[in-house]
Amino acid sequence: MLSDIEIAQGCQMRPITEVAAAAGLDADDLELYGKYKAKLSADVWTKVKDKENGKLVLVTAINPTPAGEGKTTTSVGLGQALCKQGKNAIIALREPSLGPVFGIKGGAAGGGYAQVVPMEDINLHFTGDMHAITAANNLLCAMLDNHMQQGNLLNIDPRRIVFTRVMDMNDRALRNITIGLGGKVNGVPREDHFMITVASEVMAILCLAADLDDLKKRFGDILVAYSYTGKPIYARDLHAEGAMTALMKDAIKPNLIQTLEGTPCLMHGGPFANIAHGCNSVQATKLALKLGDIAITEAGFGADLGAEKFMDIKCRKAGLAPDCIVLVATVRALKYNGGVAKADLNQPNMDALKHGICNLDAHLDNMKKFGVPVVVAVNAFPTDTDEEMDFIREHCAERGVRVALSEVFAKGGEGGQALADEVLAVLDESKADFHMLYEDSLPLEDKIRKIAKEIYGALGVTIAPAAKKELANITEMGYGNLPVCVAKTQYSLSDDASLLGRPTEFVVNVRTARLAAGAGFVVVETGSIMTMPGLPKVPAAEKIDVDSNGKITGLF
Amino acid sequence: MLSDIEIAQGCQMRPITEVAAAAGLDADDLELYGKYKAKLSADVWTKVKDKENGKLVLVTAINPTPAGEGKTTTSVGLGQALCKQGKNAIIALREPSLGPVFGIKGGAAGGGYAQVVPMEDINLHFTGDMHAITAANNLLCAMLDNHMQQGNLLNIDPRRIVFTRVMDMNDRALRNITIGLGGKVNGVPREDHFMITVASEVMAILCLAADLDDLKKRFGDILVAYSYTGKPIYARDLHAEGAMTALMKDAIKPNLIQTLEGTPCLMHGGPFANIAHGCNSVQATKLALKLGDIAITEAGFGADLGAEKFMDIKCRKAGLAPDCIVLVATVRALKYNGGVAKADLNQPNMDALKHGICNLDAHLDNMKKFGVPVVVAVNAFPTDTDEEMDFIREHCAERGVRVALSEVFAKGGEGGQALADEVLAVLDESKADFHMLYEDSLPLEDKIRKIAKEIYGALGVTIAPAAKKELANITEMGYGNLPVCVAKTQYSLSDDASLLGRPTEFVVNVRTARLAAGAGFVVVETGSIMTMPGLPKVPAAEKIDVDSNGKITGLF
Repeated sequence: MLSDIEIAQGCQMRPITEVAAAAGLDADDLELYGKYKAKLSADVWTKVKDKENGKLVLVTAINPTPAGEGKTTTSVGLGQALCKQGKNAIIALREPSLGPVFGIKGGAAGGGYAQVVPMEDINLHFTGDMHAITAANNLLCAMLDNHMQQGNLLNIDPRRIVFTRVMDMNDRALRNITIGLGGKVNGVPREDHFMITVASEVMAILCLAADLDDLKKRFGDILVAYSYTGKPIYARDLHAEGAMTALMKDAIKPNLIQTLEGTPCLMHGGPFANIAHGCNSVQATKLALKLGDIAITEAGFGADLGAEKFMDIKCRKAGLAPDCIVLVATVRALKYNGGVAKADLNQPNMDALKHGICNLDAHLDNMKKFGVPVVVAVNAFPTDTDEEMDFIREHCAERGVRVALSEVFAKGGEGGQALADEVLAVLDESKADFHMLYEDSLPLEDKIRKIAKEIYGALGVTIAPAAKKELANITEMGYGNLPVCVAKTQYSLSDDASLLGRPTEFVVNVRTARLAAGAGFVVVETGSIMTMPGLPKVPAAEKIDVDSNGKITGLF
Repeated sequence: MLSDIEIAQGCQMRPITEVAAAAGLDADDLELYGKYKAKLSADVWTKVKDKENGKLVLVTAINPTPAGEGKTTTSVGLGQALCKQGKNAIIALREPSLGPVFGIKGGAAGGGYAQVVPMEDINLHFTGDMHAITAANNLLCAMLDNHMQQGNLLNIDPRRIVFTRVMDMNDRALRNITIGLGGKVNGVPREDHFMITVASEVMAILCLAADLDDLKKRFGDILVAYSYTGKPIYARDLHAEGAMTALMKDAIKPNLIQTLEGTPCLMHGGPFANIAHGCNSVQATKLALKLGDIAITEAGFGADLGAEKFMDIKCRKAGLAPDCIVLVATVRALKYNGGVAKADLNQPNMDALKHGICNLDAHLDNMKKFGVPVVVAVNAFPTDTDEEMDFIREHCAERGVRVALSEVFAKGGEGGQALADEVLAVLDESKADFHMLYEDSLPLEDKIRKIAKEIYGALGVTIAPAAKKELANITEMGYGNLPVCVAKTQYSLSDDASLLGRPTEFVVNVRTARLAAGAGFVVVETGSIMTMPGLPKVPAAEKIDVDSNGKITGLF
């Protein structure tokens, strides 16, 4: 079989104006970025806002193997499959980050015959949104350090700066740094940290903002530091929000691209679900609901991370409610959760599958708590055996859950017909009774405990003293009603990446707490999760190349 | 009079496809970025390369005041003026850096009625070239630090890393930092420095590369560090050049925009002339020479920096030769060079003007050394008096140099007719006998001395021991034949910003030397020049704002 990039490069794309036309948009609604990418102008929302909403399908997954298990592939393939049936389906996805492209993961635009294109552009700079976020974030930091350098009228305590610089790169050497060295003309010495751009509050704000005014207000609300007397210092105190908004005036517009089969896809915003809230922009999802009869969106990593945050943060903030959840599983990932080493995943192993299926059960139990009906999509790999697939089918049947084999990787929309049928059946039954896991009024520590116990399956939670103090401080400042965004490893339901399957005898360890007042949530970091990834021993970057004609190879 | 941004926002732009058509380019030659910006496809060069070259006009200036003295304004206005006369003139400019936009300077796309548009886009993210450079630069750094972390097979000495991270931001706190702190999993601790992106060797390479293959080869040639045994380590040793080129595959394509009067402008690459080589890309200039009968390009800051580097670096590398030099002066800058404080520049002051005109003389003498005829353009300000202008006219007449008042700021192309006439007269006479200041074979230290004495007017040069050692090392490595790129303050002919006019009793102090093997020159830093600017007490960013409709204010 051809590689992802070969398939993508062989695709005869439709001009994006045609894709837009099929979604009811004309040339004036678009700002073209080449022939195959466009941003939607701000007027599009005004034009469609009074239309009735379509149905909302959330694609999530079990805990993945390190290679990922095809959630984007399934989202894209499901969109293709529905369009093949003549349905008006629109996909809303996150934009890939550059960091992982050069690390282990390679591209992040689906796979096989279920991809969005132009693949190379999407995986590299796309329409520049990530760079705009990086610039807006780092402008705020530069203004903060400059304020301290130029007299520090706000009396900012350099030991209590809570907003950090970011870079869209896997660069562990920037995790812990000291800056402002070299004497008086070179700034105020202090500790700092770079996060990867997708973990920035600026990214979260882009994804949650209703419009440009809301974006600016939220930027102003970003907590950057405390003064020596403990007074919170916000971005608006530095007069940074106007310039930050200027940097983001195009980034706020959703991007339109297409699948290999020409299905429209809004790709906008890209926070990771382990270290951030993991969902594409509210704007893109809301537009997809207006433009399509069925809107398919995804949330990052496993349902313990992405789906929980989708419902408790994104739906809460934006008034959204999913009608159906597609839970992606693979035989490989179930075996991995059953204890098989990554290198041995291609071997049939019924024992491991039986052992690991508890991970699927955990996520099915969890999704039930949100009141949304689930379809399990088994993303097919060539190494799967009939016996393995039959076992999963029977297991789901016993649990009374719909299941379908998804062959979209190998066959595109044609391979997603069974899945599309199951999803349509669920939408037809309209049985969703969506509710969030917790009320706004629940105290922050209790919110963390509730997520840890009811979603992760933990016995309880330990909170480090500094985090406990900060949670109390955040509550005292009046932000106790915000939802919680847990930063946690994606490999386990627990905060320990080595605990696979469905661990039970564990506690979740909260290390840090941080107010994201502009985004409107409180981030807590658990276990040893890091907000800046590193590169592996042989980075994917070493294999990426370009020939004389600009054709890229090695980008998976 | 309206502000620059008000004039720019009031302009009725032509669709960029029309601007392209006027320059002989069709829709297939373009990759659109919205309606008013485009990149030229790689095939354009193939299409035009056999055409005869037009004439090349270089716009440079005397030593500026801190506000700049309208070199870009003059370049743009001259282009507009020539087009008004029915000439086929094309402008080739540098792209602005984001850093200064948020610092003191505001926008950098000309001024008044001689601007390129869309002004806000150009001054913000434009077509993403700067971000691509930042990403490519920092990917190389991440791969370098990762290599040391993952066993350090190349035996890289963390004390001898010569390639630094960059950010497109004025951020002094990042000048001197320590990275890799926090224990074993967080990298190898070492000293690092951020430069502003425009000072990156990646930027210089973009500007000097002939095509994509050349770009990749040059990226591979970047010297990043030395091993513990003193062996040079190049980017190719880290296998970084392919991925870097992938990041730059669109950035390498020149951007097409237009002036307020619809004149085509190729804007591509943007190194500063004080800390880098200060010229737009060779590709853009070469294309302008093929597409236009007259190509107008500029080099940054005063002629001691930009013009010297244009001729000794860009022309040397690319086989270019200017036919005419336009030397921009203002009454204000001459008075500033005569010792008037910035706040008093709006007052008539004949004594200061007479005192400061020696700065103009120095640059006229210098340009003569390159064998290219000069036209002095006096960029008019409303505060100029007739007496002041008459004095400059007479002074130039005594020296036998053509001079014209340029009123393009206030009147656009119409205000540049006198300048256009003088330039056309020079081009008609064809008296240029271009030669560079020094031969490749001159030893590096002698090259520095020759520039310092013959261009800056220094008595001599002192070279710090570490720089002397590095120059010897670079020579020993076989790079002694490269030209020298001097980093120096733009405010003085000397390396001391306070020595205005035409200083004589000074020596130039070389602090550091660094091989830019990919770009093909050796950078020496003099005086107290810094490769990362800082923000002022009240950054321009504080006044930048965006309204609900996305309209930007405060961007000068």
